[in-house]
Amino acid sequence: MAFVAPVTIQRVTGNETAEVSDLLAVEEPLEIRLGFGPASDRQQRTVSVTMRTPGDATGRHDEELATGFLFTEGIIQQPADVLSCRHCVQDAQKAGNVIRVELHPTVSVDWARLERNTFTTSSCGLCGKTSIEAALAQTCGPLTSNFSITPELIHALPERVRQSQTAFAHTGGIHAAALFNAAGTILLVREDIGRHNALDKLIGAAFWQDYLPLSQHGVFLSGRIGVELVQKSWRAGIPLLVAVGAPSSLAVDMAREAHIALAGFVRNGRYNLY
Amino acid sequence: MAFVAPVTIQRVTGNETAEVSDLLAVEEPLEIRLGFGPASDRQQRTVSVTMRTPGDATGRHDEELATGFLFTEGIIQQPADVLSCRHCVQDAQKAGNVIRVELHPTVSVDWARLERNTFTTSSCGLCGKTSIEAALAQTCGPLTSNFSITPELIHALPERVRQSQTAFAHTGGIHAAALFNAAGTILLVREDIGRHNALDKLIGAAFWQDYLPLSQHGVFLSGRIGVELVQKSWRAGIPLLVAVGAPSSLAVDMAREAHIALAGFVRNGRYNLY
Repeated sequence: MAFVAPVTIQRVTGNETAEVSDLLAVEEPLEIRLGFGPASDRQQRTVSVTMRTPGDATGRHDEELATGFLFTEGIIQQPADVLSCRHCVQDAQKAGNVIRVELHPTVSVDWARLERNTFTTSSCGLCGKTSIEAALAQTCGPLTSNFSITPELIHALPERVRQSQTAFAHTGGIHAAALFNAAGTILLVREDIGRHNALDKLIGAAFWQDYLPLSQHGVFLSGRIGVELVQKSWRAGIPLLVAVGAPSSLAVDMAREAHIALAGFVRNGRYNLY
Repeated sequence: MAFVAPVTIQRVTGNETAEVSDLLAVEEPLEIRLGFGPASDRQQRTVSVTMRTPGDATGRHDEELATGFLFTEGIIQQPADVLSCRHCVQDAQKAGNVIRVELHPTVSVDWARLERNTFTTSSCGLCGKTSIEAALAQTCGPLTSNFSITPELIHALPERVRQSQTAFAHTGGIHAAALFNAAGTILLVREDIGRHNALDKLIGAAFWQDYLPLSQHGVFLSGRIGVELVQKSWRAGIPLLVAVGAPSSLAVDMAREAHIALAGFVRNGRYNLY
């Protein structure tokens, strides 16, 4: 359970080599198991195995990752849908890497849809149009939010998030997702070696704090904006995504459909609005 | 079929906004279908749907992506295992986004393993140790290669690769994987919005040119080094990975087991050897 792991490296500068200590971002698998069904016929099933950075020692970030994943997949809607969410301890070899989420007996799971999503790893259909239509069907339509923020506050986001990122400072190799409000205040930051996990953790954290839908918030992403990140944001009602990197073509198409504003390449006092 | 798509954006500099044309990296799904079994009982099955950048107009990069994926998943070993590899044209709505690979009738597919890999999206088991043992079982053990390259040539790689990257120059939002030799010469470059796809394309291209195993080559990666990239490289016999970004903890563990050298943070005349 950690963000970083120590390692001894050879640092090469020009032709000079020196042996020094360094820190790496931790990457470990997390299995998410669901408990579901009526009390009289309770069942269990593994729904995802993802490579993730475990995060803090309490295991809270794993709980956020699991619930953020289940929320953005449309399996849970509200905290009351979850009876409990904790690490399994039976299997010593997998200690800390299996989390079990007990669903309320009334929550029904659309297994066919979940399998389709897991199988494609991209939550959607086969052409851009199908993807967007499928995403649309899983939401309440385009977002309607009057959220706005000034360019000055957007320019300031990368530095503000960096100050809140603990693991990046040590490793330089980890993604961040951060929740901010119209005043540009950073409310939550979550980090992970995977971009999608960082956003799932952030949405999971917001889920437990009853912030959803996030119609009066924006999300900052340290990397690029792929279509899956737009889709997750749409589910969570986020009207603005701000990223250090570029969006993809399909991300821009879906964001238009969802009425999500995309700001890319935010650096050095400049950005692009798509 | 393209690397880039045009878009009109608002470029914000300080408080000034200007409407300009820009280019985005294209992201579209690719479905990989296998044809397999004896001529008397030929069958078809979809094995993967991945979000990728289509690449050049000939469809060659999709063929490389499909074969690189099948090779690194252990389904095919050599060009003779593939009877044909081409885009399906029956379904107009998915035009260009479905590729069908006809396997030689003697090739048998381990469906259970493939499903496990596809399901986890991380090709492996549940703890770091299990992952490495599983990867080990799928290779011929640690690599034995006498490949070496001077620090000067490693320092020069990022600039050399950048000169060969066509899509990045236009969009700034696409990953590259490049094959180089002991003289630091860039032999192949493949680009994709996904890091894993870029490496699959590169390995697929090397596969068709009968370069495998790549024991006298190194691979340059424009991003970070996750464990899945090390695993794919191990399968292809690559003794050196050079990356602009950081490796993860599990990537370093697996590279040690595989006897793959990792150089990370290659920039400004410096790098770290793990």
